[in-house]
Amino acid sequence: MEVGFLGLGIMGKAMSLNLIKSGFKVTVWNRTLSKCEELAKLGASVGETPAAVVEKCKYTIAMLSDPSAALSVIFDKGGVLEQICPGKGYIDMSTVDASTTSKINEVVSAKGGRFLEAPVSGSKKPAEDGQLIILAAGDKELYEEIIPAFDVMGKKSFYLGQVGNGANMKLVVNMIMGSMMNAFSEGLVLADGSGLNQNTLLDVLALGGMANPMFAQKGPAMIQRSYPTAFPLKHQQKDMRLAIALGDQANVSMPIAAAANEAFKKAKGMGLGDHDFSAVHEVVKIPENASGK
Amino acid sequence: MEVGFLGLGIMGKAMSLNLIKSGFKVTVWNRTLSKCEELAKLGASVGETPAAVVEKCKYTIAMLSDPSAALSVIFDKGGVLEQICPGKGYIDMSTVDASTTSKINEVVSAKGGRFLEAPVSGSKKPAEDGQLIILAAGDKELYEEIIPAFDVMGKKSFYLGQVGNGANMKLVVNMIMGSMMNAFSEGLVLADGSGLNQNTLLDVLALGGMANPMFAQKGPAMIQRSYPTAFPLKHQQKDMRLAIALGDQANVSMPIAAAANEAFKKAKGMGLGDHDFSAVHEVVKIPENASGK
Amino acid sequence: MEVGFLGLGIMGKAMSLNLIKSGFKVTVWNRTLSKCEELAKLGASVGETPAAVVEKCKYTIAMLSDPSAALSVIFDKGGVLEQICPGKGYIDMSTVDASTTSKINEVVSAKGGRFLEAPVSGSKKPAEDGQLIILAAGDKELYEEIIPAFDVMGKKSFYLGQVGNGANMKLVVNMIMGSMMNAFSEGLVLADGSGLNQNTLLDVLALGGMANPMFAQKGPAMIQRSYPTAFPLKHQQKDMRLAIALGDQANVSMPIAAAANEAFKKAKGMGLGDHDFSAVHEVVKIPENASGK
Amino acid sequence: MEVGFLGLGIMGKAMSLNLIKSGFKVTVWNRTLSKCEELAKLGASVGETPAAVVEKCKYTIAMLSDPSAALSVIFDKGGVLEQICPGKGYIDMSTVDASTTSKINEVVSAKGGRFLEAPVSGSKKPAEDGQLIILAAGDKELYEEIIPAFDVMGKKSFYLGQVGNGANMKLVVNMIMGSMMNAFSEGLVLADGSGLNQNTLLDVLALGGMANPMFAQKGPAMIQRSYPTAFPLKHQQKDMRLAIALGDQANVSMPIAAAANEAFKKAKGMGLGDHDFSAVHEVVKIPENASGK
Repeated sequence: MEVGFLGLGIMGKAMSLNLIKSGFKVTVWNRTLSKCEELAKLGASVGETPAAVVEKCKYTIAMLSDPSAALSVIFDKGGVLEQICPGKGYIDMSTVDASTTSKINEVVSAKGGRFLEAPVSGSKKPAEDGQLIILAAGDKELYEEIIPAFDVMGKKSFYLGQVGNGANMKLVVNMIMGSMMNAFSEGLVLADGSGLNQNTLLDVLALGGMANPMFAQKGPAMIQRSYPTAFPLKHQQKDMRLAIALGDQANVSMPIAAAANEAFKKAKGMGLGDHDFSAVHEVVKIPENASGK
Repeated sequence: MEVGFLGLGIMGKAMSLNLIKSGFKVTVWNRTLSKCEELAKLGASVGETPAAVVEKCKYTIAMLSDPSAALSVIFDKGGVLEQICPGKGYIDMSTVDASTTSKINEVVSAKGGRFLEAPVSGSKKPAEDGQLIILAAGDKELYEEIIPAFDVMGKKSFYLGQVGNGANMKLVVNMIMGSMMNAFSEGLVLADGSGLNQNTLLDVLALGGMANPMFAQKGPAMIQRSYPTAFPLKHQQKDMRLAIALGDQANVSMPIAAAANEAFKKAKGMGLGDHDFSAVHEVVKIPENASGK
Repeated sequence: MEVGFLGLGIMGKAMSLNLIKSGFKVTVWNRTLSKCEELAKLGASVGETPAAVVEKCKYTIAMLSDPSAALSVIFDKGGVLEQICPGKGYIDMSTVDASTTSKINEVVSAKGGRFLEAPVSGSKKPAEDGQLIILAAGDKELYEEIIPAFDVMGKKSFYLGQVGNGANMKLVVNMIMGSMMNAFSEGLVLADGSGLNQNTLLDVLALGGMANPMFAQKGPAMIQRSYPTAFPLKHQQKDMRLAIALGDQANVSMPIAAAANEAFKKAKGMGLGDHDFSAVHEVVKIPENASGK
Repeated sequence: MEVGFLGLGIMGKAMSLNLIKSGFKVTVWNRTLSKCEELAKLGASVGETPAAVVEKCKYTIAMLSDPSAALSVIFDKGGVLEQICPGKGYIDMSTVDASTTSKINEVVSAKGGRFLEAPVSGSKKPAEDGQLIILAAGDKELYEEIIPAFDVMGKKSFYLGQVGNGANMKLVVNMIMGSMMNAFSEGLVLADGSGLNQNTLLDVLALGGMANPMFAQKGPAMIQRSYPTAFPLKHQQKDMRLAIALGDQANVSMPIAAAANEAFKKAKGMGLGDHDFSAVHEVVKIPENASGK
């Protein structure tokens, strides 16, 4: 099977590599073309432009950093729009909001192309291990045709219906994640403030109904006030904000998410935006020089 | 090994039964003595009063329903205080607050007795399966002597230091649980309000870093608006309140827990206090007859 | 002094009437031209289009219902842009967001025109009484030239600096208002729930440091669960959302405003969006059929 | 009219002085008797003990610092209980919780005495000016008999019904106050973070529907980050906590108050407990060394 792949950042590189290793014929493109070399050595073809990739391949997958980059590869000179046409499929796996994805869907469809949004849950490690969770939405036939590639990149893919549902599902999941991280941080600080051992709290949590990989993986580092970035706090805060905006449209009142969002904003204000989102723990902590009662 | 057991409610019955099955010589007592019969048939001795049980056994375990019951078996006529003395150990596994447990510790110690608080995490099913998590605090030697019984009743026991730490650890754990339940409810309702399939959300969550038994077990019922009581909402709200009060003493600011507590209060106000704590989902739900925009 | 006036809704009609009564020579325009007749009888000239008004008058004031209407009178055929030019001033008193106002400023300035945003604080009654508070920002000279008109329409005008500051100041004020309304509602419900007389609470508040016209005016109706619309709840919620978004840009964490916003969203979900924003009181109230404990 | 007065702190001294100036025959007592001298020079008699004051006077007013002091003057040797009897009235104007006041009511009534709780709203300045707001509850006849004294000490008194209602009304009022202070702080910080002039915000607020003495008096100092103590933040936080507990009993969900309470806790954790409650402003402020985005 032949696929194009646009965007070779941390995620895109790992994902396209897995495709190559699994026998896919892959044509890659990246804004900084030098990044294509490593993959070329491993057997990838290189496209000069997104348009060139689309011209060559029936299916083109994109994994870009943000909405702006996702739109650029479509609309810029040499962009996807110049070659997309009936018969071709475009699959955007970038994490972008529903309005960006809808815009791309519109213009791709207008040219007769087929479109699938397919944001993923999981970061660097799952990308390398082919263990991503893929939240696809849009053209159902395209979804079914591209499953072999999804099976290589992820451990599970979901088809969620109309375009926008993939982006929204990811927001819902990340919103729950952000609230849980705050709940966890409050528990850690309360344990400490009450004279309890925080590591014992982790042990107790690990045995009960709330046991989950996130607490287990991030807890020990948080106790050490270490927050190596897997998912930047500023992105988590952005997702909380977008999720709350989504709730706004649907008249869903979400006081826990709102409180968590304000905590992430406080953390951003403290200069922690580029740390891992678990750094929101610092917002909850009692200031060390506090003397108040 | 010979142990006394006070209190044969849902939890106490299951726990004492496990002790009998494992070869412990158990003397039981219950306020309603008729409840002792079933256990007597299985080999338990029956004590007429808590005092009689303590007189007979070196170790007496209690599993009562609330602080008031926990204090009654100590102070009432025929209560524990009449027979507790040097050499004897009293282990209270009821879920009570730190002040109740401290009071019991004080009077038991004043008589020369040894005291251990040992509240558990887990409800009916884990009690029956001997899979409780035991949060012990108080007399360390007594803890070590009673471990054979803990090993029968629980899958893991922790020794947490001074009396009060067991109760407080349980509050911290339940506080995290209550906040998580709210975060989860908000996610479920946002998914629904945004046109996403709630069961798919459960599937996505089950595959990611937040996967946990609580979401998996309660989620499907919550989607059906079914809340069979495993842990009553009014008890969850009480624990949230006590945890926030604990944070008050320690100057720990916990906005997520506070927001969750208010949601549980709202649920109580809606008449859901005796349902499972997952019924807080009803607070988040959009009223069905809503026409607002 | 001669001024144009675009938009004769509830606010615009009252404001232009005050200008006429004070001796201003006013040329009015309204999308539904029939609304101009009443003012024409009182001495106003009528313009066929916004462009016609701008052509005739050195100063044109606009009071439109929302950002979309504010943009239409600029960009549509027969719009302000066709006639705005050096020497002319355009003053938009509509309540719109900073990005709308910045866009208008940009295109008016590009044509050599001068621009002032001047949203107002106050609704129908203050408009009729010439008691509005005017939050002006943009061209300073234009501000000084138009002061005679502001003095007729308002009791006080402020010059706040660059375009956008007027819109943002209004958001800050409305955010405080929304939070206060929630605080007030919670107090009313707590009084009732605690067996206290709510009218007495109003009396006590009226005598103390928190005494304010809003509590005094809305309190008695709220106690009766009556919410005649002075400022629609859905607009209040929109302003809360925009204020929180403003805080997002500035890294200001605002948990009270966030909690208030969620309460307004809940009220919208209950179908109260078109009622007065004081209807958020209904969100706090204990359900009448509640049986929970 | 002859009255006893127990407690000559800042408030009690000002209040008893006003009684003397208005022609009341006052017998004072204070734990540190030396504080009585100044009032003795102005015509007061001095009692050796609370009991001596009660023996001498038909009406005894108390203004103590906290629940513990309020209970001490009742129960200690030489306390009120030794002389209270049918015909005598005891009026406690201290700010204490409903349970303390109920306890005092119980023992005073048991001796045949009459009891009125009468906490006040207002601090030093209103006490000096005889401008307190008096929230009385308990014996209605006693209330009517003591009105002449209330008229001297306060600008208005309310009779609120059964004992406990005075304490609870004060909690409701202070809860609204604490939430409003947080709303105000968020507005001030958002104004600053958005490039708006904070003093202009004060001016705008002063002209609108939210204008109130508290914003006017505390705002300018808050902008300067100055928080001279009129009402200590730790007492405000305690009142928020008690109000929320009151809501707990009544099943009233109060998310704004809960969020405000957590902000006050944060402020306490920052060492601001003895500053004015307006110091919660510091919790909202963006850290000055923040570099986050």
